[in-house]
Amino acid sequence: MPQYNAPLTDMQFLLHDWLQLDHHYQQLGISDFDSELVNEILSQGAKFAEGVIAPLNREGDEHSSKLLDGKVTTPAGFAQAYQDYIANGWNAMLGSSEYDGQDMPYTMAIPVHEMLNSANLSWRLICMLTESAVLAVTKHGDEQLKKTYLAKLISGEWTGTMCLTEPHAGTDLSLLSAKAQPNGDGSYLISGSKIFISGGDQDWSDNICHLVLARLPDAPAGIKGISLFLVPKILVSASGELGAANQVSVGSIEKKMGLKACPTCVMNFDEAQGWLVGDENKGLACMFTMMNDARFQVGLQGLGIAEASYQGALSYARERLQSRAPQGVAQPDKKADSIMFQPDVRRMLLTQKALTEGCRALALLYAQQMDVEKYGNAEQQHAAAKVIAFLTPICKGFMTDMGTDVSSLGIQVYGGHGYIREWGMEQLMRDSRIAQLYEGTNGIQAADLISRKLARDNGVTLQATQSLLQKWVSDIQLPSSQAFAQDLLNEWVGTSQQLIHLNAVDLAGSAYDYMHYSAYCILGILWLSMADRAQQSSIESLKSGKANTCAFYLKRLLPRKDGFKLNLLSGANDLLALADHEFDYQ
Amino acid sequence: MPQYNAPLTDMQFLLHDWLQLDHHYQQLGISDFDSELVNEILSQGAKFAEGVIAPLNREGDEHSSKLLDGKVTTPAGFAQAYQDYIANGWNAMLGSSEYDGQDMPYTMAIPVHEMLNSANLSWRLICMLTESAVLAVTKHGDEQLKKTYLAKLISGEWTGTMCLTEPHAGTDLSLLSAKAQPNGDGSYLISGSKIFISGGDQDWSDNICHLVLARLPDAPAGIKGISLFLVPKILVSASGELGAANQVSVGSIEKKMGLKACPTCVMNFDEAQGWLVGDENKGLACMFTMMNDARFQVGLQGLGIAEASYQGALSYARERLQSRAPQGVAQPDKKADSIMFQPDVRRMLLTQKALTEGCRALALLYAQQMDVEKYGNAEQQHAAAKVIAFLTPICKGFMTDMGTDVSSLGIQVYGGHGYIREWGMEQLMRDSRIAQLYEGTNGIQAADLISRKLARDNGVTLQATQSLLQKWVSDIQLPSSQAFAQDLLNEWVGTSQQLIHLNAVDLAGSAYDYMHYSAYCILGILWLSMADRAQQSSIESLKSGKANTCAFYLKRLLPRKDGFKLNLLSGANDLLALADHEFDYQ
Repeated sequence: MPQYNAPLTDMQFLLHDWLQLDHHYQQLGISDFDSELVNEILSQGAKFAEGVIAPLNREGDEHSSKLLDGKVTTPAGFAQAYQDYIANGWNAMLGSSEYDGQDMPYTMAIPVHEMLNSANLSWRLICMLTESAVLAVTKHGDEQLKKTYLAKLISGEWTGTMCLTEPHAGTDLSLLSAKAQPNGDGSYLISGSKIFISGGDQDWSDNICHLVLARLPDAPAGIKGISLFLVPKILVSASGELGAANQVSVGSIEKKMGLKACPTCVMNFDEAQGWLVGDENKGLACMFTMMNDARFQVGLQGLGIAEASYQGALSYARERLQSRAPQGVAQPDKKADSIMFQPDVRRMLLTQKALTEGCRALALLYAQQMDVEKYGNAEQQHAAAKVIAFLTPICKGFMTDMGTDVSSLGIQVYGGHGYIREWGMEQLMRDSRIAQLYEGTNGIQAADLISRKLARDNGVTLQATQSLLQKWVSDIQLPSSQAFAQDLLNEWVGTSQQLIHLNAVDLAGSAYDYMHYSAYCILGILWLSMADRAQQSSIESLKSGKANTCAFYLKRLLPRKDGFKLNLLSGANDLLALADHEFDYQ
Repeated sequence: MPQYNAPLTDMQFLLHDWLQLDHHYQQLGISDFDSELVNEILSQGAKFAEGVIAPLNREGDEHSSKLLDGKVTTPAGFAQAYQDYIANGWNAMLGSSEYDGQDMPYTMAIPVHEMLNSANLSWRLICMLTESAVLAVTKHGDEQLKKTYLAKLISGEWTGTMCLTEPHAGTDLSLLSAKAQPNGDGSYLISGSKIFISGGDQDWSDNICHLVLARLPDAPAGIKGISLFLVPKILVSASGELGAANQVSVGSIEKKMGLKACPTCVMNFDEAQGWLVGDENKGLACMFTMMNDARFQVGLQGLGIAEASYQGALSYARERLQSRAPQGVAQPDKKADSIMFQPDVRRMLLTQKALTEGCRALALLYAQQMDVEKYGNAEQQHAAAKVIAFLTPICKGFMTDMGTDVSSLGIQVYGGHGYIREWGMEQLMRDSRIAQLYEGTNGIQAADLISRKLARDNGVTLQATQSLLQKWVSDIQLPSSQAFAQDLLNEWVGTSQQLIHLNAVDLAGSAYDYMHYSAYCILGILWLSMADRAQQSSIESLKSGKANTCAFYLKRLLPRKDGFKLNLLSGANDLLALADHEFDYQ
């Protein structure tokens, strides 16, 4: 596995110079946190990611999680690393201080999450889902539920899962059939089978809180009849003591392409006792609280993997000596030049770098908006919520497609060695591939973006996003860069507005192209802004590195937007033109 | 694993209606073969691929090849399938009739090879390398070598390998250090270690003929001092009897991302006895005979995997019921509509279909040119050789990039299930990924295309390819299609000509984009031609299917060429602008 080093220089540049964190915190009245503390957290987070969980990643892939006698065992070292993690308070970063959480701004926690993803995705995923469960219970749970579960979930003493999918209900949750029967004592008996439950069981925590979607007996059909329940693995007494095991069992664990150390479970609920989260039949809204958080976090997985792959490829390109550079012998004292001098290897590394850094800027801009949504005044919160709504599917869909593409380039830089497991580069691609699928496939993200986010509210969320980006454009100092960014913003907004009134079929046909088109435009604006801000940095290599990488992005990657744009406004007729039998030719 | 069905309808359309095989054979004076025999071979090949080796593919991936006590065991059923294969003469399809081969035209054998790739890539690879070895010995071996080895290699009683790569010499063979010492009796003693040797050992054949690159004691430095040797696993007596074991051993087998059933060996040669193939110090030229064949065959692997993935995705899309179609309820008697009705799923399936069928046309056009090179008159052979030289890197580079992209789409259509091993879709992507790396990475293919094929001979190979494509354009009946294809050809040739005089650095910087630009243009021409020809077909679904898929290709995929084109003429400065330290930001 390539050695992982947290990209602290880039993160600090983005947080301090680009996002101007101290100013941002002041404006939001956040007084407990400042730049210095941010740097301390980043540096401790880097130490944990690099020193504790990254070293477990390869072996985790080799040995996988195992199911024996109904119990899951994770690979050696995983459980201990988790104990370190929670002992040092990492799990509590975002939790409410009312339940002993640290209530950190997102701009502090998100960079640490990126590091964990780079270091060991399988390990990170279980913690991530606990954080999502914390959110759902915090926002929708009643007082008793919070009192019983929240502090333990925030500390990480107990973990959480999301139990949505059933064999025949994935994308379409209206088909789900798990049942909930009122128990007469305020609790419910939950029955049904759920699949694809990450961390459905493990050897990390004494209890696991499953958040389960199920139907009440008299529930309306479809998605309006779904309720959310918290179903603990072990029942908890009123005083908070662990009691008997609940009727929850692991049916099997999946054999997967990657993410092997993370147990993906079939979970069986057999009249298991559960408690309602939020109102009856409003489960989907509660679930979306978790889901939206999880979607952004999955986008961050794509970013984390991309970073790890870039680092591996860069160090290999520097070491691997093959042939001479076409621009002339570069290392005359060696038998051959390192492949770092080959223009085509540069193309691959720069593609990795430009996409990774661009997506990091997007992720941190998103984190900043989450801070605003949490700490801002009502008006600010309102605007930030719209930006977040708009950017969530882009972060999830684009950043995970990017993660697989970039990790595939990482393999390519290694040549044949990239295909060999011991180097770890192919694991990154296999691990990355899941992120395009779970928490809503990227096709679903694209549909969410164009239908629910862009069209449904007549462009209001678009407008909020435009306003935010306009500020970034206006702040660009170099006039030519500002003009370029302004054109890009205008073009993107203009194109987006034209789409708003398409019918549902044409929207569906344009969805995927629109998601990628939007991402390339937005990344272009962010690159111009970053490169501009970097000119004031005291770090010389950052200054020129950002400028040159920006130039590469604008020249070689941004033009991809035009290919996507071409398909946006021409409807879905060509997609639907083929009769079913015309797809066959056997 | 999805059920594989050989795409016989499409193959027969391409061979008979599009390539007009009977006419093609007549023109070349091939009298032993005709359409009827082609159909018989296709149908028998389909039966073998579908019924014998496809069923072994999933288990092969689960169990891998194993090395025990220096001997490799392939997964259950693999060796027996090979015995069936050679007993039925499949290995001998292309071998010379002088050595009991069937001397089939390539246009007959290549479709069968595609089927084998779709059905089981790991299994197919070992046979493929034997065919390459046959070529090298046929073309460069002396009479004694041919007499001893050729009939057995052609029948498949013995197999062949290619031993080029060493740990520090992959792309750059000038660095290789394996040694050959003349033995005084016409043989040589070969010493050194080779890596990535597919089928370096197996339990299929009594003998394995390794074709090994090594240096003679007095050889010039670099690639001009490399010779090619045939080194058998078991020594063969003058009368052709198997004798003692040679000093050849398997050091280890690699754990890989995919292709697990195929043993990828580290081979150790310890004064192993070998015989020269071709002249001393001319080994690279001999190796390229094998290599060029292997490169096209690897391109065909991308095609085969793409076809298998498309079939899997199509059948799943028809069965999987989720949500209602945006264009209105499609299956009112069911709980939900099949995802086949979702425009975004259509986008994925059509992308798979358009690329797969387009690449199949390219592969068969290539096969046709191989027929011409083998059977044509001197002038025809000369032109065909140039076309083949030009198209080889495009077939290898583009079709294997395509294979991974298309198999990734196949996973995506399955949603989360695509990530689970038992469905087999993720194996296709893992298996496909190697094809972008071996027989020269796709970066090397791109460099070969733009530097050696396009620029070195001042556009002569380009011109030969243009002439061939011009015939196809001129044959298009529908004027609007013909005009479209003509514009495409003119644009591609014009752009290519502009590149010829770039310097070596700019060529290197444009290489990858040029390979993809060329492929999208050529596929556009082939699609227009196919759709046009299909209008004369008596099969209604083929007629409309080709027309609609062509329209999709032209509208949604062809525009990608413009993104690649944009980067072609602007040099490599942006790629080389970053100082080494500017790549870091940790």
